[in-house]
Amino acid sequence: MDRRSFIKGAGVATAAAAATTFAAPAIAQGVRELKMVTTWPKNFPGLGTGAQRIADNITKATDGRIKVTLYAAGELVPPFESFDAVQSGAADMYHAADYYWQGKSKAYNFCCTVPSGLLPAEMDAWMHHMGGSQVRDELGEQFNMKHFSAGNTGSQMGGWFAKEINTLEDLKGLKIRMPGFGGEVMRRLGATAVNLPGGEIFPSLQSGAIDATEWVGPWNDLAFGFYKVVKFYYYPGFHEPGPTLGVGMNKGVWDSLSDSDKAVVEAVCMAENNYSLAEFNANNGRALDELINKHGVQLRKFSDELFTAFFKTSQEVVAESAEGDAITKKMFESYQAAYKSLRGWTQLSDQPYANLRDKAMDM
Amino acid sequence: MDRRSFIKGAGVATAAAAATTFAAPAIAQGVRELKMVTTWPKNFPGLGTGAQRIADNITKATDGRIKVTLYAAGELVPPFESFDAVQSGAADMYHAADYYWQGKSKAYNFCCTVPSGLLPAEMDAWMHHMGGSQVRDELGEQFNMKHFSAGNTGSQMGGWFAKEINTLEDLKGLKIRMPGFGGEVMRRLGATAVNLPGGEIFPSLQSGAIDATEWVGPWNDLAFGFYKVVKFYYYPGFHEPGPTLGVGMNKGVWDSLSDSDKAVVEAVCMAENNYSLAEFNANNGRALDELINKHGVQLRKFSDELFTAFFKTSQEVVAESAEGDAITKKMFESYQAAYKSLRGWTQLSDQPYANLRDKAMDM
Repeated sequence: MDRRSFIKGAGVATAAAAATTFAAPAIAQGVRELKMVTTWPKNFPGLGTGAQRIADNITKATDGRIKVTLYAAGELVPPFESFDAVQSGAADMYHAADYYWQGKSKAYNFCCTVPSGLLPAEMDAWMHHMGGSQVRDELGEQFNMKHFSAGNTGSQMGGWFAKEINTLEDLKGLKIRMPGFGGEVMRRLGATAVNLPGGEIFPSLQSGAIDATEWVGPWNDLAFGFYKVVKFYYYPGFHEPGPTLGVGMNKGVWDSLSDSDKAVVEAVCMAENNYSLAEFNANNGRALDELINKHGVQLRKFSDELFTAFFKTSQEVVAESAEGDAITKKMFESYQAAYKSLRGWTQLSDQPYANLRDKAMDM
Repeated sequence: MDRRSFIKGAGVATAAAAATTFAAPAIAQGVRELKMVTTWPKNFPGLGTGAQRIADNITKATDGRIKVTLYAAGELVPPFESFDAVQSGAADMYHAADYYWQGKSKAYNFCCTVPSGLLPAEMDAWMHHMGGSQVRDELGEQFNMKHFSAGNTGSQMGGWFAKEINTLEDLKGLKIRMPGFGGEVMRRLGATAVNLPGGEIFPSLQSGAIDATEWVGPWNDLAFGFYKVVKFYYYPGFHEPGPTLGVGMNKGVWDSLSDSDKAVVEAVCMAENNYSLAEFNANNGRALDELINKHGVQLRKFSDELFTAFFKTSQEVVAESAEGDAITKKMFESYQAAYKSLRGWTQLSDQPYANLRDKAMDM
């Protein structure tokens, strides 16, 4: 996934307008208005709609005492200036995928997802109960931010391919659209990884400019219509095993809230963290049925050899990325310690249950 | 798990006292007091503490305008009279595992967990986005109740066994402590399933009165010290693949709340649904390390033959249970439809990722 693509054309129109809004949060007639910027187009399924739910639920749960107004990508500031806008106070909060801010600190990758990383339930366990959110708080302090987990797309698919990929040899020269760490992994394995905006993926597949692309999961991928051009849909994705979506609030704004308003914001974000993952899972299941049974999509599973190469190369790329600032190192160490323990529990719980369920149900 | 055991000795002392509290919810000096009863002992890890968090967070997020007072098992009413107390208005809300109320309608099993049923993430997808909560609302209407998902223990372990269980033959005559549907499955497969309160399990294992027991998961099981008597710890459990914990609120009380207070209650419950599962997963991972590395517990995986027998027998028992009232039938049909779709998505996402991760990491 690379949400830059969402905002192609969403424009950077209002950057100048934003400069006029650097005032403290509006307080009028007992109503406090908070501006929430996002990196998503308005009402984009699961992402834009999730951000809208957060805005609406905070407004509703405070009986309008806090009125959160949502600005879609480009409406107040360009999407990838959301962080800066909140940091400076031009906006009060954002909803985004925190790995967009890895330019600030590589630690932000671990707040969202990294290749070969934690699954969604493992991520929540680390973040809520194994020190993750404490390190994230420290990270936020450096940027005048307070961060919250507030959504999850679930494990992503491996991507769409024009032809079958059976061995490492098949990666050589493959032109795949895959941004970020995943793209770096592909490059190290001999592919040509490019980054294209979402709107350019479909025509690029059609013209043969690229042979493959990743996007998100069945729900969002179905909407993009990739199945019309390429038929091989690979799983599982190694590159984004369940990105946590995040709310970041200006630390001064957060500190100024009453204890009860803080409790509302915390509850609404964590509720969305639950509701959002459930929404992606529900819709992915339905969309998958449609892709296979209506559109003749051919599911393919990455071979053990391929996935192992993806995974091990990912671990190298991620470990190298952690050799940055002190907070990234600290977060990586916390993440790794939790990973070992959580994987041990996954191996005895959901994972063997799902595997033995399949055997019992003859699949 | 059978939480009746928790409350042995917690007493039924205050049933008479409860009769004096049938008045409408207390409203004094602008503060509305809500009584929350539970089926858990005070501060029982993950369950009692989770209920306390809900009470505290509602109180905090409403700035004390609603003050939720928590009553542990037996403090206001006996634990298994919690439902009746809320239905009648003697209490305003409860926190419990909804399968305790299967005597009211078998449909309540599906609100919590059934053997061979949905995993936690699948359960949330069904409940929040595939019609589950709508049928649950209909069910609640019949009993003057409004229900919320508000916690999850995660997939449970298969149990503790004095000797290894390798074949179906080994189940014959096995004396196992397993209540409910799981116990019925065991009986159909030739075991003697008994139900013992939690406090009697340890001495019964020690004396040989029972050969095996299930409880919850590593976190709660470690505290009970079963490892001191029996060493074989089996996984995965077939009988409770992730019980959802629930809040039930008197429907009249719910209807009387303002829209903003409703939004607070909804957000707090759904936030706990996320936080609670994460807590169980985090602590199960840690406790598992301790059980294996410090206490020499021997992990064993149920054989394909055994798990398949458990699973298929479970499906029979569950399908039979659904042949009850109309609402149970409706809920079962909704559950089954979601199951098919959600399992399809699990097979392409978390499950193959976890499996291929293990191969890549040489386990």
